[in-house]
Amino acid sequence: MAIHLDYTNMMSPPIEGGITAAEWSDAATAFTAAHKAVAGLHADRTLGFLDLPDDRELHRQTTDYVAQLRRDGRYPSDVVVLGIGGSALGPIALRTSLRAPGWNLLDDAARKGEPRLHVLDNVDPANIAALLSRLDLSRALFVVTSKSGGTAETMAQYMVVRGRLAAALGDEAAKQRLVFVTDPEKGALRAIARAEGVTALDIPANVGGRFSVMTPVGILPAALVGIDTGELLAGAAEMRTRCSSGDVRKNIAGTYACLQYLADQKHGRHVHVLMPYSDALRDMADWFVQLWAESLGKHRTPGDAGFGPTPLGALGATDQHSKVQLFMEGPGDKTVTFIAVEQGDVEVTIPKLHGDIPELAYLGGHDLGELLDIEQRATAGALARRGRPNMTLTLERVDAWHVGALFMFLEIATAYAGQLYGVNAFDQPGVELGKQFTYAMLGRADAEQARQEWNLLPKSNPDRVI
Amino acid sequence: MAIHLDYTNMMSPPIEGGITAAEWSDAATAFTAAHKAVAGLHADRTLGFLDLPDDRELHRQTTDYVAQLRRDGRYPSDVVVLGIGGSALGPIALRTSLRAPGWNLLDDAARKGEPRLHVLDNVDPANIAALLSRLDLSRALFVVTSKSGGTAETMAQYMVVRGRLAAALGDEAAKQRLVFVTDPEKGALRAIARAEGVTALDIPANVGGRFSVMTPVGILPAALVGIDTGELLAGAAEMRTRCSSGDVRKNIAGTYACLQYLADQKHGRHVHVLMPYSDALRDMADWFVQLWAESLGKHRTPGDAGFGPTPLGALGATDQHSKVQLFMEGPGDKTVTFIAVEQGDVEVTIPKLHGDIPELAYLGGHDLGELLDIEQRATAGALARRGRPNMTLTLERVDAWHVGALFMFLEIATAYAGQLYGVNAFDQPGVELGKQFTYAMLGRADAEQARQEWNLLPKSNPDRVI
Repeated sequence: MAIHLDYTNMMSPPIEGGITAAEWSDAATAFTAAHKAVAGLHADRTLGFLDLPDDRELHRQTTDYVAQLRRDGRYPSDVVVLGIGGSALGPIALRTSLRAPGWNLLDDAARKGEPRLHVLDNVDPANIAALLSRLDLSRALFVVTSKSGGTAETMAQYMVVRGRLAAALGDEAAKQRLVFVTDPEKGALRAIARAEGVTALDIPANVGGRFSVMTPVGILPAALVGIDTGELLAGAAEMRTRCSSGDVRKNIAGTYACLQYLADQKHGRHVHVLMPYSDALRDMADWFVQLWAESLGKHRTPGDAGFGPTPLGALGATDQHSKVQLFMEGPGDKTVTFIAVEQGDVEVTIPKLHGDIPELAYLGGHDLGELLDIEQRATAGALARRGRPNMTLTLERVDAWHVGALFMFLEIATAYAGQLYGVNAFDQPGVELGKQFTYAMLGRADAEQARQEWNLLPKSNPDRVI
Repeated sequence: MAIHLDYTNMMSPPIEGGITAAEWSDAATAFTAAHKAVAGLHADRTLGFLDLPDDRELHRQTTDYVAQLRRDGRYPSDVVVLGIGGSALGPIALRTSLRAPGWNLLDDAARKGEPRLHVLDNVDPANIAALLSRLDLSRALFVVTSKSGGTAETMAQYMVVRGRLAAALGDEAAKQRLVFVTDPEKGALRAIARAEGVTALDIPANVGGRFSVMTPVGILPAALVGIDTGELLAGAAEMRTRCSSGDVRKNIAGTYACLQYLADQKHGRHVHVLMPYSDALRDMADWFVQLWAESLGKHRTPGDAGFGPTPLGALGATDQHSKVQLFMEGPGDKTVTFIAVEQGDVEVTIPKLHGDIPELAYLGGHDLGELLDIEQRATAGALARRGRPNMTLTLERVDAWHVGALFMFLEIATAYAGQLYGVNAFDQPGVELGKQFTYAMLGRADAEQARQEWNLLPKSNPDRVI
């Protein structure tokens, strides 16, 4: 498989303050237990994301639906995902990594007739009004994605869109411009789908939102814009196979999880930077941030101080001019994981201009891809030289197979990391209180307790406002 | 002025582990010294960014140039900024905050004839090739921005673009499609401008890249796409006036800087989150991240462990479904600064649909802007309830005046924070080694020492590659 992780610069030696041979040796035992626990969750069928690469029936839900749209002459010019969190970050990362740059700016010919893909991931009225005003609603398809079927932001978007569609096209035609992605049995979206005959695809009950990119959450938008979803799943399957060993030295996701855990818990590297050197992978960092933050940012036992590293997305070479100063000379509280890409699809050579100006002349004749690659190695080397731990994940290329493998790599690593940290990587209890306060302020009937708790909060102190 | 900072939830009480009355009282003395030091740097004319709001001559460079383009019938359909770091983040934040959502997707009528604005902030060949292939080069204007005139990434882009322009239009016409923004005297871009008659606007010598958004770095792209740059500067001027006091209780930027410094240094809040609840301000967070990271992530004395908080951008309500779990239940090592907006330009009401489904019915009749506002307050309240310090900066609206004021607020706060941390907020020595290694690998003649240092770095260990 053409994905490799070089973690030389995470270890001591060569990095003073890196992970020691003794720590790494001890980690083997801890990893074997973590691996066993994850395998147990999988065997119990509580960890569904590992089964997704082989779930042909689920994949067929998408491919059949897309084929039906084509047969019916209802194929959209614009696909709009209404979703937030895991329902939005996967589709965005897929579009950026596997469609041409500036996809939505391209004309129909340049997109080869495939639709544009918009993702509404917030409830800001300005953005929603602007998008709806410029779409041809009769040729748009709205993918409403919510596992629970009750996510406030997504449901608010859905109600706005449904109202606009009904006003423009009538309610029967409106239903043809909607497709739901939700739990197979439960929740409001499933109930509406059943009662009104709106198409609904499944997020298996045992797959959580942030692990759902290989369900129709990611696969449907991907297929609609012409991404090879079979290759995505094949790459994910191959990565899963590669992570079957309980020996950390033979398990790439295990290696990554153990390194990050040790760096954090033994050496105070609390901030985990993911820094692809590839514009195509820039939104993959945001997807990872949710996965790592929401899975690991937890109490181990109620009332403890809290665990979990802080993930930070970055982009090379761009953020060499933003964040790298801090990585080099700020506190030694970070690890940096670079993602390098071996082969680009396009090359651009810098012409030999201004040969008389030394600050420019040295660039002439080099390729931009070469420059990007050199900058990644230079930055990794500079960090190492200053004792800052870093590792490099190298992908042979950015295509559907490798992107599928990358998603699965990070998901499996997260499952292992949850075990190592001793937290449940698959829930998110911390967001409940804010939801309840929102319900209370919106006047939802069942939020009386939250309303009382809200009223007890300390009020703004006028002496503390400037 | 309609910008306020409510920091009730940063203090103890009500937040256990918040800043105490004694700490806050002591901060007054430290702030007076910091304020005096910044005023001294300003008086010495080493801190030019504070003078930019009144620099009519500099502003006129932009307005004259833009007027000339209109007079000459050379007004572009597409403006392309070639820049990285501060040269890119300001223009991007200005476009997102002050132009209609999805600006580059709009047709000419919706943009009222103003140009699209593209920012090439990386050297990835795929993105550059894609953009150049779809532009009408004879109607594009390339703004090449580099203070030093020698930034490798920007110079590489410039050479590629110049080569393409010359091939398409001939070299004389090519010069008409270029404008430089650079040091008034020094560097390769200034030399080329002089030798070849390319227009070049000034970045004053005493204004650093990340403090340069109110120079032509930000003002020229803003003016080209029709943003009211006079209002930007007026808002910045008003904020500067508001930050004239040496009494921290009367200085909003001083208050912000002292709170963040105390939270970090006295209470271990090393991660400083900036979380606007506004799609228009989403890219402002990235601009802030560079400012805070590159200014404060420093050694105080050579060889020390390093100082500086880690800034983290977030977006509400979106990141309630990504990062807020970590903010609520992860380690108590963060502060969260919300940005709330009082008045939107557009409102969208959620229709009263699905009245029989409780998970949806409560939303009907509310406005999306109201929902966004409620979610911000709910999240702030939930963080406070869990003892997590946070503060809220409220803007009356997102317009050029308030955006100008917000830029200046954060810049002045950064200058104060540099004094409090005891670091030089205006340099970036940590990125030099990576640059030198890049020069060495590209074969630049003056990089012999870096080449030797590079060759001494530990090599990749095959036992540490999986």
